[in-house]
Amino acid sequence: MDVLSDLTTAALRFRDERNWAQFHTLRHLIVSLNLEAGELLELTQWQSDSDLAALIEDPARRQALSNECADVLLYLLLIAEKAGIDLADAARSKLIENAAKYPVECSYGSSRKYSAAAPETDTA
Amino acid sequence: MDVLSDLTTAALRFRDERNWAQFHTLRHLIVSLNLEAGELLELTQWQSDSDLAALIEDPARRQALSNECADVLLYLLLIAEKAGIDLADAARSKLIENAAKYPVECSYGSSRKYSAAAPETDTA
Amino acid sequence: MDVLSDLTTAALRFRDERNWAQFHTLRHLIVSLNLEAGELLELTQWQSDSDLAALIEDPARRQALSNECADVLLYLLLIAEKAGIDLADAARSKLIENAAKYPVECSYGSSRKYSAAAPETDTA
Amino acid sequence: MDVLSDLTTAALRFRDERNWAQFHTLRHLIVSLNLEAGELLELTQWQSDSDLAALIEDPARRQALSNECADVLLYLLLIAEKAGIDLADAARSKLIENAAKYPVECSYGSSRKYSAAAPETDTA
Repeated sequence: MDVLSDLTTAALRFRDERNWAQFHTLRHLIVSLNLEAGELLELTQWQSDSDLAALIEDPARRQALSNECADVLLYLLLIAEKAGIDLADAARSKLIENAAKYPVECSYGSSRKYSAAAPETDTA
Repeated sequence: MDVLSDLTTAALRFRDERNWAQFHTLRHLIVSLNLEAGELLELTQWQSDSDLAALIEDPARRQALSNECADVLLYLLLIAEKAGIDLADAARSKLIENAAKYPVECSYGSSRKYSAAAPETDTA
Repeated sequence: MDVLSDLTTAALRFRDERNWAQFHTLRHLIVSLNLEAGELLELTQWQSDSDLAALIEDPARRQALSNECADVLLYLLLIAEKAGIDLADAARSKLIENAAKYPVECSYGSSRKYSAAAPETDTA
Repeated sequence: MDVLSDLTTAALRFRDERNWAQFHTLRHLIVSLNLEAGELLELTQWQSDSDLAALIEDPARRQALSNECADVLLYLLLIAEKAGIDLADAARSKLIENAAKYPVECSYGSSRKYSAAAPETDTA
């Protein structure tokens, strides 16, 4: 079994030992993932660029970053399991789709092009 | 190599072919992950519980969910790579830490206990 | 002076007494507003519909909701002040724009239509 | 009537003309406010500090910022109305509470102190 399956199994065991499946609706899992993403964002609050460069070198703050990344991954695995999604396949497909959407020759190295080409901003 | 390393390699190759590393600061990756988490949340907007149960059965909406999950995973991999974090180790450690924080006997099956015990709410 | 101007003046005085203007860049204010919005969202985490109906009747939880609403408003006022935006005018214009975008006869009372017509989902 | 009451009345009229009250539960309003906050955040995605300084001077991007601020305010007014919260009172109380929490002499002008003192980070 691969690492994502292993982690999913461990997360489900954790949930089931506590009888928490009843709370793990798709809606609540997605809300929880958003809250964990927000805790990642909070690590950047009021931080200058040099503060953030230093974050990675500071064991305590890097550990906080690691913990929040773990929380996001765990909720993501639970969402994928709930919806019957193969996360690794989904990510591979998305990269292929993005490669078609952002051809190298149109997207190379310009922040302006990048910004205009980004999936998030072309739907704003 | 495991699946997370493979996907990270593919995501970095995609980035580097477009010369986008310059935009992929920790701050921008974390903001982008939050925006993708928001697109997951958007799939729940105005949806009743039965709408959301139906979402999983509807191929087009399930594909949208799958795409947004993929986007969250890809940014998470880039953040972890940037900060030198082993995501699978981080998730395993977090489950061990959570098991100590939410002992089965204190956390079993009650939404009230669960809510009061949850990491997100004990810091409110 | 109207209430929004009064509150903005009070928020700026609070900021300036602490010499915090240097941290209040547009980016940091927007990130902070998102974190406060997340704290509102956290009040809904793991809550059933009946839990949420009860929230409004519970003085302590209603106070928490009130505090988070206040935080969102204060950051919104600071963002508007920073960018020279008249919030009340902006809201009035948006209602006019939305009225044109969602004509009553196309939008009346259907969750499906509403969802398909909503500004957030037509750009997904 | 003050401007917040006026805007709330206008937002409720817009909602009721479309028979949308049925969708405006506290949960959905809070989710929607978070999505609008995310659209504000999206305006900062991939932007350098100088890009963001230029945003305020660029009429089209400033208008986009103004629109997203309006959306946040409108959902905030609907949430407050739903919960029977007086937003202006709530903001005034919050400033008094914050003044006690961050005394000028402890909070003056240092990003490190500010960060350590900030409501968002002391609960991380």
